Amino acid sequence: MALNSTRELDELKQKLLRMAAHAETTVRLAIQALVDRDDNLALRVREEEAVLDQFEVQLDEQSIHLLTQGPAPADLRFIAVGMKISHDLERVGDEATTIAGRARALNQEPLLQPRVDIPRMANLALQMLTDAIASFLDRDPGLARAVIPRDKEVDALNKHLNRELANGMVERPATITRALHLIVISKSLERIADHATNIAEEVVYLCEGEDIRHPSERSSEPPPVPATGPHPE
Amino acid sequence: MALNSTRELDELKQKLLRMAAHAETTVRLAIQALVDRDDNLALRVREEEAVLDQFEVQLDEQSIHLLTQGPAPADLRFIAVGMKISHDLERVGDEATTIAGRARALNQEPLLQPRVDIPRMANLALQMLTDAIASFLDRDPGLARAVIPRDKEVDALNKHLNRELANGMVERPATITRALHLIVISKSLERIADHATNIAEEVVYLCEGEDIRHPSERSSEPPPVPATGPHPE
Repeated sequence: MALNSTRELDELKQKLLRMAAHAETTVRLAIQALVDRDDNLALRVREEEAVLDQFEVQLDEQSIHLLTQGPAPADLRFIAVGMKISHDLERVGDEATTIAGRARALNQEPLLQPRVDIPRMANLALQMLTDAIASFLDRDPGLARAVIPRDKEVDALNKHLNRELANGMVERPATITRALHLIVISKSLERIADHATNIAEEVVYLCEGEDIRHPSERSSEPPPVPATGPHPE
Repeated sequence: MALNSTRELDELKQKLLRMAAHAETTVRLAIQALVDRDDNLALRVREEEAVLDQFEVQLDEQSIHLLTQGPAPADLRFIAVGMKISHDLERVGDEATTIAGRARALNQEPLLQPRVDIPRMANLALQMLTDAIASFLDRDPGLARAVIPRDKEVDALNKHLNRELANGMVERPATITRALHLIVISKSLERIADHATNIAEEVVYLCEGEDIRHPSERSSEPPPVPATGPHPE
């Protein structure tokens, strides 16, 4: 790969790293807005999300430009996976916006404090995201593999919180509106963990050429893709 | 581009078309399982989702292989956008699985029929998806542009259904569990419309080189991406 492209590839990595840091900050801001019941913080989340959107647009452009330079196969794979990852990070920003919107709605109502610790759940999801991005930049499949099982922990917290809130609704119908907001927030956190898991799975694929994204259907023989009819109108 | 690669590019398009048809079928199956209260249909959705996962894995491999052939810039852009689209279609399959899971849970309970017509909402979202995929394969930015505003219609139906169900919960706490399932199903349909919108926006970008994915922050001068600090540990 020409020296120019090596520099461009390095810039691409740096930008992806900045985008990941920004995604994390945006989620932290949304959770802070929830915990502090602070509308101003919640309003700032949308601005931060717009920055993430711009990151994705710029990364796509740079990636496509780099692909036109005829990169080495390993770099090509890295760039292609990077494009998928920036899409995941942009979606993390969308989830932060959802959380912030629900935080603002909750600020209009008396506090409803669930027993499940939402900031702790956010920390778990964000640590997964941090590790997944680090595993990508360092091409470290071991670190990526360690991220994947942690998704179950966040899923379990989400289910636990759902049950708690649903039961609370039945016992105290006055909590219904607030409980619905908290259910949406919890689901957003669970989706952030899903994005981290996606990224980690992509990294294993990148490093080991093994696709573990969809392990449920793995078998010694990959199942054939059945031919379906023409796309219905 | 060599003749071989032209054939490969055509195969890629055909496979993406089959994947899109499969994604649509999977969502229709999930909605049918809900309407007919049929657990067997719901169980089939997971199998169909596994097929979608395989489609994505295979499309990624084929796309990366094609990229190594040094395609013409327009084809390169098409292939890169195709990789993002297959990821969206795979996520549509995830939403179908969510719908099917909630349909099974609802089958255990007496029927709760909301006034908002869920199958109609599903049809709207799926028609958006069909049109978005057609716009990609035909490189038709006009058709893609027509998809984007329809997202608001599905969003409005989702909000309407949410309000209806939340009010119903307050009046009849016995409906809470079922209403929560229906809220999740409605949200999944709203996300399917989001994926269709994503795809349509990518197509406009592909055809016109103009990025309309994030119009809210567009201005005559694109905002600079602020440098953030190093990724926090």
